[in-house]
Amino acid sequence: MIRILGITHDHKVESNISLEQLNNMSTSQYLWSWIDFDEPTKEEAEELGNYFHFHPLAIEDCLMVLQRPKVDYYEDYEFLVLHAIDPDTLSTVEVNLFIGSTYLVSFHHRSLTELDEAWEAIVKRPHDKKSWLKGPFAAAYMVIDKLVDQYFPCVYAIEDELDELEKRGARESVELLMNQVFDLRGRLLKLRRTIVPMRDMMYRILNSQHIQGEKEHRVHFSDIYDHLLKLSEMIESDREMTADLRDSYISLNSNRMNGIMKTLTVITTVFMPLTLIAGIYGMNFINMPELDWKYGYFIVLIVMLGLSIWMILWFKKRGWFK
Amino acid sequence: MIRILGITHDHKVESNISLEQLNNMSTSQYLWSWIDFDEPTKEEAEELGNYFHFHPLAIEDCLMVLQRPKVDYYEDYEFLVLHAIDPDTLSTVEVNLFIGSTYLVSFHHRSLTELDEAWEAIVKRPHDKKSWLKGPFAAAYMVIDKLVDQYFPCVYAIEDELDELEKRGARESVELLMNQVFDLRGRLLKLRRTIVPMRDMMYRILNSQHIQGEKEHRVHFSDIYDHLLKLSEMIESDREMTADLRDSYISLNSNRMNGIMKTLTVITTVFMPLTLIAGIYGMNFINMPELDWKYGYFIVLIVMLGLSIWMILWFKKRGWFK
Amino acid sequence: MIRILGITHDHKVESNISLEQLNNMSTSQYLWSWIDFDEPTKEEAEELGNYFHFHPLAIEDCLMVLQRPKVDYYEDYEFLVLHAIDPDTLSTVEVNLFIGSTYLVSFHHRSLTELDEAWEAIVKRPHDKKSWLKGPFAAAYMVIDKLVDQYFPCVYAIEDELDELEKRGARESVELLMNQVFDLRGRLLKLRRTIVPMRDMMYRILNSQHIQGEKEHRVHFSDIYDHLLKLSEMIESDREMTADLRDSYISLNSNRMNGIMKTLTVITTVFMPLTLIAGIYGMNFINMPELDWKYGYFIVLIVMLGLSIWMILWFKKRGWFK
Amino acid sequence: MIRILGITHDHKVESNISLEQLNNMSTSQYLWSWIDFDEPTKEEAEELGNYFHFHPLAIEDCLMVLQRPKVDYYEDYEFLVLHAIDPDTLSTVEVNLFIGSTYLVSFHHRSLTELDEAWEAIVKRPHDKKSWLKGPFAAAYMVIDKLVDQYFPCVYAIEDELDELEKRGARESVELLMNQVFDLRGRLLKLRRTIVPMRDMMYRILNSQHIQGEKEHRVHFSDIYDHLLKLSEMIESDREMTADLRDSYISLNSNRMNGIMKTLTVITTVFMPLTLIAGIYGMNFINMPELDWKYGYFIVLIVMLGLSIWMILWFKKRGWFK
Amino acid sequence: MIRILGITHDHKVESNISLEQLNNMSTSQYLWSWIDFDEPTKEEAEELGNYFHFHPLAIEDCLMVLQRPKVDYYEDYEFLVLHAIDPDTLSTVEVNLFIGSTYLVSFHHRSLTELDEAWEAIVKRPHDKKSWLKGPFAAAYMVIDKLVDQYFPCVYAIEDELDELEKRGARESVELLMNQVFDLRGRLLKLRRTIVPMRDMMYRILNSQHIQGEKEHRVHFSDIYDHLLKLSEMIESDREMTADLRDSYISLNSNRMNGIMKTLTVITTVFMPLTLIAGIYGMNFINMPELDWKYGYFIVLIVMLGLSIWMILWFKKRGWFK
Repeated sequence: MIRILGITHDHKVESNISLEQLNNMSTSQYLWSWIDFDEPTKEEAEELGNYFHFHPLAIEDCLMVLQRPKVDYYEDYEFLVLHAIDPDTLSTVEVNLFIGSTYLVSFHHRSLTELDEAWEAIVKRPHDKKSWLKGPFAAAYMVIDKLVDQYFPCVYAIEDELDELEKRGARESVELLMNQVFDLRGRLLKLRRTIVPMRDMMYRILNSQHIQGEKEHRVHFSDIYDHLLKLSEMIESDREMTADLRDSYISLNSNRMNGIMKTLTVITTVFMPLTLIAGIYGMNFINMPELDWKYGYFIVLIVMLGLSIWMILWFKKRGWFK
Repeated sequence: MIRILGITHDHKVESNISLEQLNNMSTSQYLWSWIDFDEPTKEEAEELGNYFHFHPLAIEDCLMVLQRPKVDYYEDYEFLVLHAIDPDTLSTVEVNLFIGSTYLVSFHHRSLTELDEAWEAIVKRPHDKKSWLKGPFAAAYMVIDKLVDQYFPCVYAIEDELDELEKRGARESVELLMNQVFDLRGRLLKLRRTIVPMRDMMYRILNSQHIQGEKEHRVHFSDIYDHLLKLSEMIESDREMTADLRDSYISLNSNRMNGIMKTLTVITTVFMPLTLIAGIYGMNFINMPELDWKYGYFIVLIVMLGLSIWMILWFKKRGWFK
Repeated sequence: MIRILGITHDHKVESNISLEQLNNMSTSQYLWSWIDFDEPTKEEAEELGNYFHFHPLAIEDCLMVLQRPKVDYYEDYEFLVLHAIDPDTLSTVEVNLFIGSTYLVSFHHRSLTELDEAWEAIVKRPHDKKSWLKGPFAAAYMVIDKLVDQYFPCVYAIEDELDELEKRGARESVELLMNQVFDLRGRLLKLRRTIVPMRDMMYRILNSQHIQGEKEHRVHFSDIYDHLLKLSEMIESDREMTADLRDSYISLNSNRMNGIMKTLTVITTVFMPLTLIAGIYGMNFINMPELDWKYGYFIVLIVMLGLSIWMILWFKKRGWFK
Repeated sequence: MIRILGITHDHKVESNISLEQLNNMSTSQYLWSWIDFDEPTKEEAEELGNYFHFHPLAIEDCLMVLQRPKVDYYEDYEFLVLHAIDPDTLSTVEVNLFIGSTYLVSFHHRSLTELDEAWEAIVKRPHDKKSWLKGPFAAAYMVIDKLVDQYFPCVYAIEDELDELEKRGARESVELLMNQVFDLRGRLLKLRRTIVPMRDMMYRILNSQHIQGEKEHRVHFSDIYDHLLKLSEMIESDREMTADLRDSYISLNSNRMNGIMKTLTVITTVFMPLTLIAGIYGMNFINMPELDWKYGYFIVLIVMLGLSIWMILWFKKRGWFK
Repeated sequence: MIRILGITHDHKVESNISLEQLNNMSTSQYLWSWIDFDEPTKEEAEELGNYFHFHPLAIEDCLMVLQRPKVDYYEDYEFLVLHAIDPDTLSTVEVNLFIGSTYLVSFHHRSLTELDEAWEAIVKRPHDKKSWLKGPFAAAYMVIDKLVDQYFPCVYAIEDELDELEKRGARESVELLMNQVFDLRGRLLKLRRTIVPMRDMMYRILNSQHIQGEKEHRVHFSDIYDHLLKLSEMIESDREMTADLRDSYISLNSNRMNGIMKTLTVITTVFMPLTLIAGIYGMNFINMPELDWKYGYFIVLIVMLGLSIWMILWFKKRGWFK
């Protein structure tokens, strides 16, 4: 679907313009316009090359998936590749923006609520907050802002799970906790793969000559950069927390193993000598004087009891039951 | 609560001014004033937008929680987001400052002793140390200084626990020590999340053009930056120490496991052959010549004793009892 | 084999020129030409020094293997060492380029499909896309682009295996999974050894003064750099994923060990006391009153059963069967 | 104690000057002087504020402990905080220097041999090596040089222990070796905490504008910086070596555990079936034909022997005794 | 030994000049000369201070061992500290160079084949390759080049061992493999300690103003820098490979431990119940009906067999024999 929105010279917003109508834009009916390629069909995608004379490399980047977020400066326009996050799978969705002086062209293979929100925001409130409608650059800012805002709930969800995980602690099976930690780590890695390149791109935008001039834009883009910086710091810090949790579970496991081995050793050590004694007096030698003693049996029982008590006390003294 | 403090032209300090009175400030009754939004109600918070014409983005940052410490340079004022640490939970509390040429506006959702101290310091000693009262910038410095000073006891508390932990060492149960180490690591992580962004912000302030001019301010801010640098180095170094402690406990655990397994193996190795011998002479075959020997029983006992002594010596020789 | 391709002044492409013919190039029959040393024999390699007067250091770098990707700027030409990847062994194959104003000389000890493709692309479509045929620099770009494109399938293959590995998870033997993880890590390390130096070289090309002038080239080289950046980020991120997988397998192993030890301990703890009891009543003392009881045997059996049930319940209560 | 040393205009050195005498320095009796606050009492420390009009922040830094090594540039003087190392405890001792054009003021809460050496060096040889006596800056260099030289024996001592540890290797108990490794790591961490900030400070001094002018000073300070760089590299490398040693001990431990477990398993596997056989023929069934065989007993003994040999061979074949 | 080599104005090379003869050099008999202090005696070392008026700091650095590779720029000459590697012990040997406009002074406490080679190269081929003989700087380049070339065989030897280690893999005892891995890691660490500071020094030379002018020198030094960069990357990558190998051996060890524990547990679980049964029927109660059954013994044997088969099948089902 291609949808078009135009701002007239008297600051009205007209939406649902067709591509044909837009052709007359050169006759400057509109101050500027936003053309959104929303899940375009193959035919619609071709319009990108026909109507707009963008650089072939840029168009190729649009059509290909798996690009890195980046900004390319062409003579008449800027070309941005951005990454949205699909909140369910945490996979990335590409959004391409062409920002010219009188147009904003957005191109994305999947429909995105973030773009719909930005679209609505411009369609609905045209008159107040004029500065927001200064032109394509402001609209582009709005799109990027919505995309980045979408990252936060993903990171917050992970932080909440982390907090919960820390509280539950030792009560649950280590195996289950471990699985959750490794799941969290995997999700953090996926998020980082989206957020860090976005942050780097925003840094490059902020430090390039191209945007320097317009003070108002800088303030806004610097705000987005701060958000991305905070997000990437949260992710790094969360990854360290998961690493700490993982290490603490591993050491918990090893402590439990120690406990298990102690139990086994105590049991073996206590019962093996007793079993030997019983075995000895089960031998069938003809000449075994103790067997004929009247209280031989009871003496042996008492010796066994004494021996086991002594051994348990010995283990206790060495601190095995702590 | 909104509280206001004004410095008159003859360097007197008037506190408890109301917002209405301040309105006349434009008629320059005061040299400069400090307006502190201390746990403001929703209505009070709105005054931020009404009385002062701050940039909407800055006001939004004030009202939102979970900002990164940062500094934004607007035309007439600077906007700072700072982080205080709640010493009990080590969570961060945001403090927002607007520094203009004739006013300092501070905004924080929770009451903070650090701000109260800075407030008192200005109210109480107006005449000596004049340089301190040069204006809003000096007051802002004082607030930041108090905030950063508050970090030290938190880090020192952790270092003290670390020292103590190192000393106690092997005497206690590994599990308990481990828990403490992981608790310390978690607290260090929390502190770092507050201190490192503060340090980065202070670095950006020091290296920006905006503050360059005023030499006196640079010296003070550079002092705060040095404190933050020292704090972050302490935290990094403490995290490495906890990592070392953790690794040493893990290896202690593994050494103990080795000891336990050795005990088990020695016991098993010594008693199993003896039990087998006893079992053999407990068999009921009709033709077992040894059973009829007169001293058969005693010979077997001696053989058992000899065997066990030999095995223990063998283990000793292989160094199992070290 | 040495193959030569010349672009005539009327933009025709002539291939299969001999070195002798090229000698007349100085009489400018061709706009520019591409001389490709494709698996050159020792004699052919010597032509490099005879026909072209390249710097001895550059020629030495050509003939030696195990160079780092690099760019050297000489007066009349640029000398590039590039790395192709052999997709089977992931080992690197060196490609050397000399880029002059009227010639491109490529030199590689092994035949490469990437170069054949670039060669074909120039031979076959000479008239459309004129900008592509501007000269040796554009041809060099094409070679580098093909080389870098070749990296992607290698990295994708690893990512696919990683995804599959994550899904199979606990169903398979840990030993097998581990081997695969370590194999993947080894391959990632090999790829990184090729890709990271290529990325660094491209960065140095982009930031050098030499290429600054020609805007069109910058756009293309910047595109290659972005691909290399993405590749190196993918590799880093994949290495972290394999590290996480490795750690999760190790912890899985340790969990299983715990399970095994629990089984052993439960079995030992339950059967050892029972065996002792049986051993006691197998002793041959003359005076053992229980042996003469009518239901002694059955009482002992019931005691044994009760004891084992009690112990199993005790283990259950302590959570050993979770 | 406050001790004062003055260089007269005819390049004589006068020591043991009192503070009162120095007051006349303004009348330029001396070319320059060195005032050393050596373990000053509280009263003496106050002279710092009275006689010299240093910035309150600098004086506060002098009196407070736990500063970071740093350099602050004031209008008439430089203020340096330096760290000496106490060779016994490896804890840091602060030395503060004020370097003016006609004076050097050093302030340290503990007496230090390094300062005494620098003091002696200036007192004793005034006439040769004139360049050394150019002024306060050269004296300051000498103090810093002595402090940094003091770091080397501390690091060398650790390296020697490391070398020795590597040689002893497997002969000793792992537990003991481990403790030494962790002790070394702790000391390296302490040293790094002192040396790295010193290195950073020296780097900042070398790269600041303030020292740029005087070529001779640069050469000397650059020499100190090289020493600090080498020290910090040695420490990093030593920390990696200790980490490798730690890992090798852990793996040694785990190998030994494997050996112990193999012993246990072999013993158990060999003796359990034999014990069962003995147990079976110890049963009291009336109808057990083997019991009545003439050579039943001997057959059983031979079977037992054969079985145990077969099992040991089986273990040998599987490589358990390597 | 001090050996001297002079280049006459007609580009002849005279070697075996004595120091006395060289004194006349000021009368410019030679274009330039190379004075090599090859394992100098104490008296010879003193000539360094007498004949040449080098800066005392530089001479001190010559005589002291354990310097960092570095370059110091003095007015008339450059002073370089370089590191050669002793291929047997991988320890570093210092080489000091003073590069003036008419002389090269090299100073090293141990004889080095690398320097002999450079020496021979200059003595033997004076007329061809003129550019090589341009002066002391070119000779210095040759010395450094030979030193760096010497590093390669050391790193290659380690890489070969690593490759071999990877191939042998699981066939050998883990303990042996481990020892080799830790040995390799130690050697890599030693090499890095030499190579990384050399690389840093070369980087500083390349980026300093001093060498900027002479294009030809830059190309050569940049070539050496590329070699050092490649070497340091190889070392880093090899260290990661050894870390991976170490981890894979550790996990192999842990897998084997699991296997051993499984064997032990299966054996114990199978034989303990059987032994108990045998023990029960070995009791001497008067009233044990089963003992009097005709086929009691055979029934018990069959029950035992069935029980053991059932348990083995149960373990098989749980996948313990994979």
